[in-house]
Formats: sequence, C-alpha cells, structure tokens
Amino acid sequence: MIKAAVLGYGTVGSGIVEVINTNKEIIAKRLGDVLEVAYVLDLREFPGNPVEKILVHDVDVIMNDPEVKIVAEAMGGVEPAYTFAKRALENGKSFCTSNKELVAKHGAELIRIAREKNLNFMFEASVGGGIPIIRPLIACVTPENILEINGILNGTTNYILTRMTEEGLDFNDVLREAQQKGYAERNPEADVEGYDACRKIAILSSLAYGGQVDFEDIHTEGITGITPVDIEYAESMGRAIKLIGRASNKDGKISAMVAPMMLSKDSPLYAVRDVFNAITVTGNTLSDVMFYGKGAGKLPTASAVVSDMIEEAMKYGENVKILWDEKKLELAHYSEIENSFFVRLSKGEDFDEERVVKAFGDILQVVLESRPDEYAFITPVMSEGEFLKKYESFENRLNMIRVG
Amino acid sequence: MIKAAVLGYGTVGSGIVEVINTNKEIIAKRLGDVLEVAYVLDLREFPGNPVEKILVHDVDVIMNDPEVKIVAEAMGGVEPAYTFAKRALENGKSFCTSNKELVAKHGAELIRIAREKNLNFMFEASVGGGIPIIRPLIACVTPENILEINGILNGTTNYILTRMTEEGLDFNDVLREAQQKGYAERNPEADVEGYDACRKIAILSSLAYGGQVDFEDIHTEGITGITPVDIEYAESMGRAIKLIGRASNKDGKISAMVAPMMLSKDSPLYAVRDVFNAITVTGNTLSDVMFYGKGAGKLPTASAVVSDMIEEAMKYGENVKILWDEKKLELAHYSEIENSFFVRLSKGEDFDEERVVKAFGDILQVVLESRPDEYAFITPVMSEGEFLKKYESFENRLNMIRVG
Repeated sequence: MIKAAVLGYGTVGSGIVEVINTNKEIIAKRLGDVLEVAYVLDLREFPGNPVEKILVHDVDVIMNDPEVKIVAEAMGGVEPAYTFAKRALENGKSFCTSNKELVAKHGAELIRIAREKNLNFMFEASVGGGIPIIRPLIACVTPENILEINGILNGTTNYILTRMTEEGLDFNDVLREAQQKGYAERNPEADVEGYDACRKIAILSSLAYGGQVDFEDIHTEGITGITPVDIEYAESMGRAIKLIGRASNKDGKISAMVAPMMLSKDSPLYAVRDVFNAITVTGNTLSDVMFYGKGAGKLPTASAVVSDMIEEAMKYGENVKILWDEKKLELAHYSEIENSFFVRLSKGEDFDEERVVKAFGDILQVVLESRPDEYAFITPVMSEGEFLKKYESFENRLNMIRVG
Repeated sequence: MIKAAVLGYGTVGSGIVEVINTNKEIIAKRLGDVLEVAYVLDLREFPGNPVEKILVHDVDVIMNDPEVKIVAEAMGGVEPAYTFAKRALENGKSFCTSNKELVAKHGAELIRIAREKNLNFMFEASVGGGIPIIRPLIACVTPENILEINGILNGTTNYILTRMTEEGLDFNDVLREAQQKGYAERNPEADVEGYDACRKIAILSSLAYGGQVDFEDIHTEGITGITPVDIEYAESMGRAIKLIGRASNKDGKISAMVAPMMLSKDSPLYAVRDVFNAITVTGNTLSDVMFYGKGAGKLPTASAVVSDMIEEAMKYGENVKILWDEKKLELAHYSEIENSFFVRLSKGEDFDEERVVKAFGDILQVVLESRPDEYAFITPVMSEGEFLKKYESFENRLNMIRVG
C-alpha cells in the first residue's frame, strides 16, 4: 500500500479523493499496488462527510508521517503551497499539484529539489485540466525543435467568445450570464484579462525551451476589448477570434504572448468551442499535433493529478527527468514579435486611404456592408513595435487584433 | 554515447536517421547523452547516400554488437520484424517499432520478453503516426476506467471521405485521384477495407483493457460502400461520415469495431478533415480528451519512433511497465454491440411504411427532396444482431450506416 495525502478539500481536492475511490481497482491494477489517501488537509470541518476520518488541520501530521510517500496539493495560490511543497520534498515525499500559480512561479526550483532528493515534482493538471499536455511535452516530443505552441488555455474566455460569435452578443452580457451559470468567477479578471492563460503559457514555454520563463515577462492582453463588430469582421473572413497563448522559437529567439487572435479555418484551434481547451505543438519534424479536452472541471482536473500520483507511486525513489532550468530564459522583447494585424479605423470626412497605404504597405482591405463608416484591413507581417508606431499615429483607430 | 541501429531504410527508416541528424543537439540536451545511429540494415544498396557508411546487409552484425543498446524497426510486416525483435531483446537491446502488424500480432509477447530482460519494447509510431497516443494511454489516463476509444485512424480513407463530402464526388473517382497523388496505395485494400484501422484499434484496445485483443476478432467494414447519396443524407442531418475504429467497455463487456459512422457536430472527430487522424479517449472521470495530428508521413512517424529511442536510451536497463497481457481478451460478439442505424430503403409502388415502423419501432425519418424514391430513417438503439435480422428482412434495402 502506498500512502498519500491531499492538501485542500475544495473542488479539485475532493475530486482527487473521489477519483481514487471510484477507480480504486483499476488504479491498483495499473499501479500494481493500492494507492490510499491517508490524510486530507483542510482548515475547514466537513461534518458528516466520510473525509472526516482522515481530515487533519495541521500539516505537520502529514509532513512527520514517514509512511506518506506522496503529497497532492490542490489549494491554489503560491503560499502556503510553496512552503508545503518544499517541506514535503525535503521530508522524502514526492509532490504533485494542479496549482498553476505555484508551478509558474517556483516550478524550476521544485523540480531541482525533487531531482536532488530522487523524488518527483509533477504538475500535469496545472495546464489544460484533464488534457494530457505536460507529460507529452516532457516525454513525447523529445526529438523536436519546438517551433511554436499555441493554446486555448482558458475555458471561461473561450465560452464567452463562442457565445459572442454564435449569438452576436455583447461581451458584458455574456460575462454576466456566464457568472450566473458558474462558468465565470464573480471577479473575472484573472480569466478575461488573460492572466490565467499567461501563467499556463509560461509553464508550457518553460518546458518547451528548458529554462525559466517568468510570466511577468509575457505580454498579455485579454478579451474585454473584443466587440461584436470585430467578430462580424472575423466571420466575414471565415475566421474566429480566440484568446491564444503562444510561445515560439524563431531561430533561437524565444517569445511568448497572450492575446486575442483571428484564426483561420486551417488552424486546428478554429473549431474549439465553448469551455473546451486545446493546445497545438508544432515541431520542426513532427509538424502540428493537438491535445484537446475540457480544460477545467472537478473530476477531469483531479484525474490529471491522480495520474501524477500514480506515476510518483510507481517511481518512488527515482527521479523522472524534467528539463526546466532555474536559469531565466530571456524572451525576445514584445515589440520584436512579428505578426500581421487586423485594423479598424473610423472613416470620417477627411479620411485619407493613401495615408493608410503609405503607413502599412500592401494591405488587404476588408469591407463590411453594415459598416460603411469604417475602414478595415489586414496589414503585412511586421513587428509589434513597428505596427504600434504606425497604428498609434492614427487618431481614428477603433481596434486592432492580431491575425493568428 | 548511446549506439542504435535502424532496421529498414525505406520512408520511415530514412526519416528516423534524418530526425536524429537534424535535431542532434536538442536530442542530446534532452537525453543528456548523444544518440548515434551506428548501423542501418537494408538489403538494398544506396550508392552515394551518406547512409552507405553505416549500411549493413546482415542483421547479425547488429545483434552481435554489444555496444548497440537500441534497435528501431521500420521494415513493416510481421516477418522478419518479429524474429529480429525477439533476437534484439534477447541480446540485451531495447526495441522500438512503427510496425502496426508486428505490434497487433506479437505486442503482448514482446512486452513480456522486454520486461523479463529489464529492457523495453515501444511502439508510439504504430498508431496515429506522429500523434502521441500510445504513451498517453500508458502513462496519462492511468486513473481512468476507459469507457470508449474512438479513432479516425487511417488518413487515406479520411481524405477520400473528405473529398467525397466537400466536392460531391464518387468513391472511385476520389480513390483514383488519391492514388495519382500518392495519398493512396496502388493496392488500396488495406486502407479502404479498414484493415489498417483494425490493427490500430486492436493495439489501442489491448492497451486500454490490458489484454490481448486479436484483430481477427474485430468486425471490420471499410468505406467502399459509401456513396455520395449517403453523404448527402448525412449532411442534411448536420452529420459527417467517418471511418471510425471504436473500442468500448460497457459494464465490463468489451467490444471493438471498425466501420463508417455518421458523427454529429458534437463529436470532436466531426471536424477532422483530409489526411488528419484523431483519437478520442473517454474515461469515466476524465470525460473526453482528443489527440490530433498527421497520422502518417515520413518525418512525423519517424519523430514518434525517435521519441521511443530517446526514452529507451534514458531508461536502458529499466523496464517501463506496460499493461498488455498475453491472455486473450474475449470481446463481446459483434452481434451484441449496440448502436442506432441510418437506413435507406427504396420506395417502390408497394412500399409499406407501417411495416418499417413495426419492425424498427420509433424511427426518425429523414427526407431528402432530391430522393423522392427513397425512404430513409434512423433507428432506435439496438444490437447489431437485432438490427441485421430486421434490416435483412427488407428486400428493398439500399444501405445502412451506423450513427456514431
């Protein structure tokens, strides 16, 4: 029997206990041993809940029990998760987590400590919920020079954009409805401003490029500025607007960004609707592969944590190599990232088309019959810096969206 | 340095050498050592090709070189691949392969031998080309009771069905064109009759359920009977016809099948076009995850083989547990598998609608304006056996397709 502890009995934490109980037999068969949750740590009481029997309020009970070999954390936030992770590893326990803040901030250090202790620090559930993406990055695309990762990494924003697209609704109306349905938080900032996706692409790019990508370095834009008119334009071009987390390696120049992008039908991400997440990985010899599924939810996320617990149980005392060095990876500055851009200008009386062409070069004009008062176009590929300088010289600018 | 040998210098074999040469540095970084192809086995000569320097015609040279730790096979066919795999393992070499015939037929035995020798037998490229699916099944969905696997596992047939759908073309015309373009073999039987997909779903179901699923036991239908009219009907219902390999576990009753199915837009496989492959895995707590990409092609397939070589190099002398027992898994008989069915009958003068309703129960009639001479409908869910008995009692039957 292998004893484990679960830190936090919220949505994911209680899901972990549920997955292990529900699939006891199949887990025992695959693991070749019984995985038992010996403790659950939570400050709250759960009167009448079977978890009471294994509930503890003091983390020391877990840390000091030498029989506990695996600690799974689902509390969220950097602290006290970080302190608990270090203590667990230093006390001879492998650690796994669904906590993207913890992983984005301290992943590299915790991976190093686990390696030094011949233990493991795993985090499959920290990106994409139940979608296998961390393990495939570590163990499957190993021969690849990873040219690009593109991800729809946040279910709430994808749900909002899908509703806006399919029903022509306004951002605020859909957000309110999503909050009522429980698809969006009461404080939706982390989702709609892209902060959640930013931490996730920081984790993926750290793994893809083997060094520490600080999420603070990643230029991040959310979806609050996307309007039904933008979506109308996108649809007229056979495109869809998605919030994309992107990491790329162009001739050794690594960059990362989160922003709404207009995807064409050729992108496998184009058809990813509602709360679903998906991540494409582009390798120089592999070309594109995509991983798709529900990016959140109690049981799918818990299942990913339990897959880590099973691997850690199978490999207790043996470190699985993860290339994510503590050394900071210098990203190319945001202004150097290249893209083409969709631009909308208002067409007042003194509108000067020639000035636009002079500024942006060979543009592709997009005409919407319903918007005679606008001048919209797609620019050639140029750097963000170059684009912004040009774009900001127009006082009549309405919006701009990257073309993905 | 870790020495490897490649058996077969055809499309995939030469791709393996190319991937290793192209991505030498990144592979060395991830592996922590240099992976070197010391030998390539092929009966042919390749005058002027750099492979000449490492080309051998006698497999004994490889088997007898104790420095060769890894053998990658890309010859195809059961023999001599099977003999070589056994010899390699018995001579202390881990073995990996892209060869679905070998894996479907002898996978369980080779996995056992590898385990006994503390070596590995790996086969990521045998299903889905470059798409990571074998490793996710072995290492990611470990907590899951796998309820169902559905796969578009053959690129040629998916290409043909896509062209038929999008251009209203006839099967034979598209096949001929696909052959001219090199997307289909001159002898297309293995693809269009579903034999290729059958071996692949046999491999996936063996891994999902931990025992030997013989491909000969899997009811297999190809796409040669699909007509533009069937596709017209499917489209009128917002559905797409895809060749699906399916394995499922219903209350412990395991079944597998390959057949064209009509998928609704709700299926993530619906939008998988052209030569792309995709596999959904449905777990009882995970729900659906999908893996998507190019299911064939020289470099993507080779990349998957090289990912096996890298893992085998990292874990030389240590067996990675794969649950695929030699004991045969008894599948539920084909006639017990449940589905609903789309049926087309010709509507002669004496057509008797009441007889249809009496036979099939609550049906959903599908009317195509362009087909006044047909009576088409979807049946309730019933077993294949029950369905066939009813269906075959109608002399005026035109076609039937499962509703997926």
